[in-house]
Amino acid sequence: MLARRDPYQLPGPTAPRRRPPRRDGRPSVGALTSPDISTPRPEDPVAATGPLHPLTNRERNQQLRTYDSHVKGGFDKIVDVLKRISALQHEQGFEQKAQALALDALGFPLPEHILARAWVTQLDMRSLFAWCVFETYKRTSAAFFTSNPLGGQEDTAFDAFIRECGFHLLDVSPCADGRLAHAISYALRLPFSSVRRRPYAGAMFDVERTVARWIKTEHRRHREGVPNQAHEDTRYLKAVIYHFSSLDPRHQGCAAHGSNDDQAARSGLNRLHDFRQAVENSFCCGASVTLLLLGLDTDTDAIRIHVPTADGATNPDHWLDAREVYGQTVAMAPEAAREVIGERVRQDAGGSIEEGMVRFISQLLENNISQIDFVRQFHNGAYGDAGHAERFIGVGIGFKEIHLRNLTYFAHMETVEEGATDLDVGIRIFKGLNISRGLPVPVVIRYDFHSSVPGSRERAVRSCERIAAAVHGRYRTLSRQGLLHTLLTVRDGDHYKPPEVLGSSLQSPVVEVH
Amino acid sequence: MLARRDPYQLPGPTAPRRRPPRRDGRPSVGALTSPDISTPRPEDPVAATGPLHPLTNRERNQQLRTYDSHVKGGFDKIVDVLKRISALQHEQGFEQKAQALALDALGFPLPEHILARAWVTQLDMRSLFAWCVFETYKRTSAAFFTSNPLGGQEDTAFDAFIRECGFHLLDVSPCADGRLAHAISYALRLPFSSVRRRPYAGAMFDVERTVARWIKTEHRRHREGVPNQAHEDTRYLKAVIYHFSSLDPRHQGCAAHGSNDDQAARSGLNRLHDFRQAVENSFCCGASVTLLLLGLDTDTDAIRIHVPTADGATNPDHWLDAREVYGQTVAMAPEAAREVIGERVRQDAGGSIEEGMVRFISQLLENNISQIDFVRQFHNGAYGDAGHAERFIGVGIGFKEIHLRNLTYFAHMETVEEGATDLDVGIRIFKGLNISRGLPVPVVIRYDFHSSVPGSRERAVRSCERIAAAVHGRYRTLSRQGLLHTLLTVRDGDHYKPPEVLGSSLQSPVVEVH
Repeated sequence: MLARRDPYQLPGPTAPRRRPPRRDGRPSVGALTSPDISTPRPEDPVAATGPLHPLTNRERNQQLRTYDSHVKGGFDKIVDVLKRISALQHEQGFEQKAQALALDALGFPLPEHILARAWVTQLDMRSLFAWCVFETYKRTSAAFFTSNPLGGQEDTAFDAFIRECGFHLLDVSPCADGRLAHAISYALRLPFSSVRRRPYAGAMFDVERTVARWIKTEHRRHREGVPNQAHEDTRYLKAVIYHFSSLDPRHQGCAAHGSNDDQAARSGLNRLHDFRQAVENSFCCGASVTLLLLGLDTDTDAIRIHVPTADGATNPDHWLDAREVYGQTVAMAPEAAREVIGERVRQDAGGSIEEGMVRFISQLLENNISQIDFVRQFHNGAYGDAGHAERFIGVGIGFKEIHLRNLTYFAHMETVEEGATDLDVGIRIFKGLNISRGLPVPVVIRYDFHSSVPGSRERAVRSCERIAAAVHGRYRTLSRQGLLHTLLTVRDGDHYKPPEVLGSSLQSPVVEVH
Repeated sequence: MLARRDPYQLPGPTAPRRRPPRRDGRPSVGALTSPDISTPRPEDPVAATGPLHPLTNRERNQQLRTYDSHVKGGFDKIVDVLKRISALQHEQGFEQKAQALALDALGFPLPEHILARAWVTQLDMRSLFAWCVFETYKRTSAAFFTSNPLGGQEDTAFDAFIRECGFHLLDVSPCADGRLAHAISYALRLPFSSVRRRPYAGAMFDVERTVARWIKTEHRRHREGVPNQAHEDTRYLKAVIYHFSSLDPRHQGCAAHGSNDDQAARSGLNRLHDFRQAVENSFCCGASVTLLLLGLDTDTDAIRIHVPTADGATNPDHWLDAREVYGQTVAMAPEAAREVIGERVRQDAGGSIEEGMVRFISQLLENNISQIDFVRQFHNGAYGDAGHAERFIGVGIGFKEIHLRNLTYFAHMETVEEGATDLDVGIRIFKGLNISRGLPVPVVIRYDFHSSVPGSRERAVRSCERIAAAVHGRYRTLSRQGLLHTLLTVRDGDHYKPPEVLGSSLQSPVVEVH
């Protein structure tokens, strides 16, 4: 067993690290309290330059980079375009000029009723900004389902692989923090359709709802043999991804845990234990689940894996670091590297780990090596936007199409009443990101439904409207100032198609709860 | 098949019916809009006087009457006692006199800190009233679990009976209306521990949560063979109980359906259909449930049963009326009466009904005959409190111990956000009942948990506090005026014991949601 050590916390400071300025001029917001301060860079097993790792998937890295740049570029040019349009607002032929500029730069026209009112006092830039964010989101969403930038909707090879590893379902709760929004598709390189994702602030997932989800999964195995027969010896795997910052650990860690990595890991593990005990104590006959605790360094995207032993024990003080594995194997041939990785996992568990778990964790490490190189290739080894830089908040049930870092602060919830803490964190983040610049917080609300169930769309629509009313009611002051806008969407989870837009607070004011 | 007919709506008015005045002087509040107006009494197949039905359980009726009178008496003397105490408040030795009076009349002392402040301005009667209601509720609750006034916690004979009828679980959603709070234990005479009760305004239960509950039930059969093996051919029976008033149908019916019986029945049936379709379309392999639509006359407690055919079809326009069955069998010997009842059920279904369902419905009718006689024996054939006369609102998950008519407006909900409509109905009722008299609305919040699951009590406590905050936030004005008070309780559903009281808004103000 490895003793506890943290390669990121070495005694002496080295030369200050310079981060490239953000191209869009947006501030990078820290862990809710601090500006983005350059901090000493610790000794690093993975140099920012040099050859890529032999296991890195270069082609995939390039695809992922292209998709990320394309989508974020769409959001990030909005402010510049609106500034240029603002400068034109009292000119002759303003509306035509503004539309031509928007079409050319953004790819879509602006709502005429907002432009047409500009001459009375001035252009309503807040509404226009929210409108552009929502329009860009809608286009991004639609393109996701039609162009499959991250691959298609099913990955039977991967599904077969995890079953061979001993699992019939992967249920992952990352933190709601936007810097983990890409955790599944980028950091872990898992096919998004094969993973059940449930983000919560601090990764503090809802135990009772997860038990309900477990019951549903197991019942389908009993009743329908889907995804496999109930008698097959596989488990429901529940993973938590907490996060930390290797470069600025005290400011850029998890806000929900006060940038305290240790607390983030322990809290995640406690929640996992609660879930397992709830399953075991609620059902007899060997009912159980497998747990996995992961940490993500939001600067480098390198993961930590708290490798469990065969008896399911996880040590929050002990982990296998992907950067260390990277450094150890970078000079090897691919097959040799894979062997070393597997051996490291076995060693880390103290030798008593199931071989399926070894395969699964080894695959995560290999996948993460590509992502470490992704950050080296395109971000000089650590992201320029070290802090929050989300473009919108996502609230509700769904968001299958959201997989980009710092695109979305995503709080999974059925009601604002239960998810209020998570949503408060998101609003605080956007006070720093948007409201400080006079721009509104764009909140996309989503409620997925299953069209195979009659009436479920109508119930999802009502849930969506209920959540919108609760959001506007909770942040009444912002809402009345035009500093919070909501887009209401529902999506049919039985079909692989884009969400349906129901409307937004830009069209008609949402009725507040009193 | 019977053609549609309503014995309660005959052409000519008869002599006006007089209702006895309420003993406690409380107003009887109608269906939110109208005062309690004496209406013409329709021709009645069950006379208010005369011998009891041979199938009536006289002994049980007397027990139920004693329990009902005892509990309601405890609540209903509060106002009179407080009036007498109020008259003493500026006398010498007020506190001692008040405590002596309270102990003698109510059986418990009053909170000293409220009495001690009386001399400064005047006695805080609103707080004192809420405190007495909560204290009486606590004592009633505790006594329920220690004295078993309605029988013990298990009824294995009944459980075996319903399985022989073809059902492994009874899940009943009555309306949240307090005039149905006794539906299970009194009107239907079912053992409360054998029935899952989920009241909603208008009986409009939550389809998705009921599906989740169905999955859990079925999964336990698959995994543990509890309550029976999954391969046994029994069904989950979901029943809805809507309600109507035979004596004042346009004013004293269901508020959620505008006192429109027809709409109440159709809406209930639609919700049942939605539930069955959700189960059938979400799971393959013959997954289904059995549905049963019942109506309750809140004046006489007589039920209507919409007898389903063997293929599961239910006609909202067609029912078997317990009062008609009563009238047809009142002069027969018990066994002959039972035979006629069974035959009526078979006829009503058109002959194609499963024999288990015939047995079950026949039993409900026989049980209800006792209740019809209960109302004849003790309420002159129809209740004096025809309208709302609830003593408190119950909100949350649980309330196993509440089984008395017009004691509690009970809204089953996990969040106020989702249950807001139901709660609004309750608050409107109590505006008529209490606030119109200057008295606060007492709201008891309950969240049941399972101590077998570690952490579940702590989560229930947080849920209870969250609901309390949401209640005070939603009715902010009432709350600030001292016209709404909450008692917070949790209960361990794994043990047969009273709820645990966490505190109340009388001790410390609950933090409002902003």
